[in-house]
Amino acid sequence: MKISEIGEFGLIERLAAIAAKEHPQSTARKELYIGIGDDTAAWHNTNKLTLSTTDCLVQDVHFRLGQTTWHALGWKALAVNLSDIAAMGGAPECAFVTLGLPPDSEVCHIEELYRGLLDLARRHGVALAGGDISTSATLFINIALTGSAGTTLLKRSNAQAGDLIALTGFTGLAAAGLRLIERGSPPCPEDEPLRQAFWQPNPRLEEGCAILAAGAHAAIDISDGLVADLKHICCASGVSAKINLSDLPLHHVLEKFFGSETLDLALGGGEDYELLFTAKPNVMSCITETLKTPVFVIGTIEERVPGSVKLLHASGAEYKLQTPGWDHFV
Amino acid sequence: MKISEIGEFGLIERLAAIAAKEHPQSTARKELYIGIGDDTAAWHNTNKLTLSTTDCLVQDVHFRLGQTTWHALGWKALAVNLSDIAAMGGAPECAFVTLGLPPDSEVCHIEELYRGLLDLARRHGVALAGGDISTSATLFINIALTGSAGTTLLKRSNAQAGDLIALTGFTGLAAAGLRLIERGSPPCPEDEPLRQAFWQPNPRLEEGCAILAAGAHAAIDISDGLVADLKHICCASGVSAKINLSDLPLHHVLEKFFGSETLDLALGGGEDYELLFTAKPNVMSCITETLKTPVFVIGTIEERVPGSVKLLHASGAEYKLQTPGWDHFV
Repeated sequence: MKISEIGEFGLIERLAAIAAKEHPQSTARKELYIGIGDDTAAWHNTNKLTLSTTDCLVQDVHFRLGQTTWHALGWKALAVNLSDIAAMGGAPECAFVTLGLPPDSEVCHIEELYRGLLDLARRHGVALAGGDISTSATLFINIALTGSAGTTLLKRSNAQAGDLIALTGFTGLAAAGLRLIERGSPPCPEDEPLRQAFWQPNPRLEEGCAILAAGAHAAIDISDGLVADLKHICCASGVSAKINLSDLPLHHVLEKFFGSETLDLALGGGEDYELLFTAKPNVMSCITETLKTPVFVIGTIEERVPGSVKLLHASGAEYKLQTPGWDHFV
Repeated sequence: MKISEIGEFGLIERLAAIAAKEHPQSTARKELYIGIGDDTAAWHNTNKLTLSTTDCLVQDVHFRLGQTTWHALGWKALAVNLSDIAAMGGAPECAFVTLGLPPDSEVCHIEELYRGLLDLARRHGVALAGGDISTSATLFINIALTGSAGTTLLKRSNAQAGDLIALTGFTGLAAAGLRLIERGSPPCPEDEPLRQAFWQPNPRLEEGCAILAAGAHAAIDISDGLVADLKHICCASGVSAKINLSDLPLHHVLEKFFGSETLDLALGGGEDYELLFTAKPNVMSCITETLKTPVFVIGTIEERVPGSVKLLHASGAEYKLQTPGWDHFV
């Protein structure tokens, strides 16, 4: 059935029914004072700080139809926003979903997209609180996500010389997964971790809260690539960084499928949604010992040229990363 | 200059510079704890309730390039969101702007769009707190807007039998303006109020707050059309409504340009962004006497079939509106 057969209000009714069934209000962290169906959503404040972020996925830019399941598309649209809340050490609360849909879209596809989104929302107690639907020649999904935090946050601008730099997981997997998808390689069980990293990232929300509570200084999610995002922290904090390449975790599946390109993928590939964070050595020890998720310490914050990132082999030789950062328009 | 010549980060730099110059932090109602440049924005809560809404404008659906100025496009993208906060009786706080832009877009056009958005933001003390930029074959602007309120709101579901129904201004002007634009009629000074209503609506934020403070029961903004939006209130509140057509304000420019179609435009045309609200007669008297903006009392809330709206001529004869409501997909 095409959306044009049931209309905007028919579609909204069906999506609301899915939300009510698969994501009842009781699964949301936040009890809404006013949810879907009025001019705005409204909720009572609890924590001191309110957070908000927005991120969108656009057809033929962030995804191609036919290269993904609709469920994964909905999941990822929310995941990229959740990851931003995680990188502040906050707790997510309410999601506002804008869908731009070609009129000949299949209703069952959009319902499946919604199920993917709701599956992830339920895991993290996010309330689906509102949205907008429009026709659009290009399919897009924009999500605005609010959250909350106490009095402190993991700012990008708070890294300090002497801090250790750490990662909550492997990098380069999502970029490798995207290459496999773009090449049209048939999926096999062995390369699943790479495709999964691209399509179903797990935002590090619990980790972000634990890292903040332990007293870490700064954090960012690896959406632009490890080196590019570390540079963002260094620029914002007016510090420099050194990465010891021998400490960089390289996933065996990445090495198996991409051989000599592994290092560049791990340093330059984006969309991994792991957290990159900095903390004093004693705080870092406490985090690595108590966090269930493995944490890899990969370098140190220094006081050289602000914004610069040095990559060092165990021999002391410097490595130059060739991969440029992603730019939407160049 | 095309966006592809300066890239995503070049564009962001230019837009940030415009924002800093034309919309300094001091003009925003809300001092941000963290603004643009981190994973999320963050601010301290003041009022009891946090509000949030999202609305988007899509090329060839909500606007056509060449039929508007870029300044007006930016203004309207924010105005439609502000209007939703107004219809709750809230105060707007932070805007999150997602731009989907064809790579061959002219930089000066997007800068002008931003200036329009910031001009309206400044008027209402809104802080531009974050956003996202992506390429997209179809141009779109999505805004998510947060706001706040005390302990009460103008809910759609709170209209009560015996309430009077009122409007903060004329309706049908925006729909008439759109018809002129679609026809390609050359603009003349006389039809300016119609075009202006479509492209530069003034969200009724002060009026919304005053109406709530006075003790009105329910409100909605006229974005779908007077009758359609009154039905939304009636359905949500489980009541019916009667409109006295002789009390309906008809703008003389609308009558001049659209003659016999005037009534249908006033009842069925959308995108006017006036507030339609209900209040007890004594509260309504107080509002009409104290509000600077003229208020037109046009009918009564009753207890007939829930969701039904009756349109009555002075003779007592019933009028049937032919215009169907707008549906994006049918």
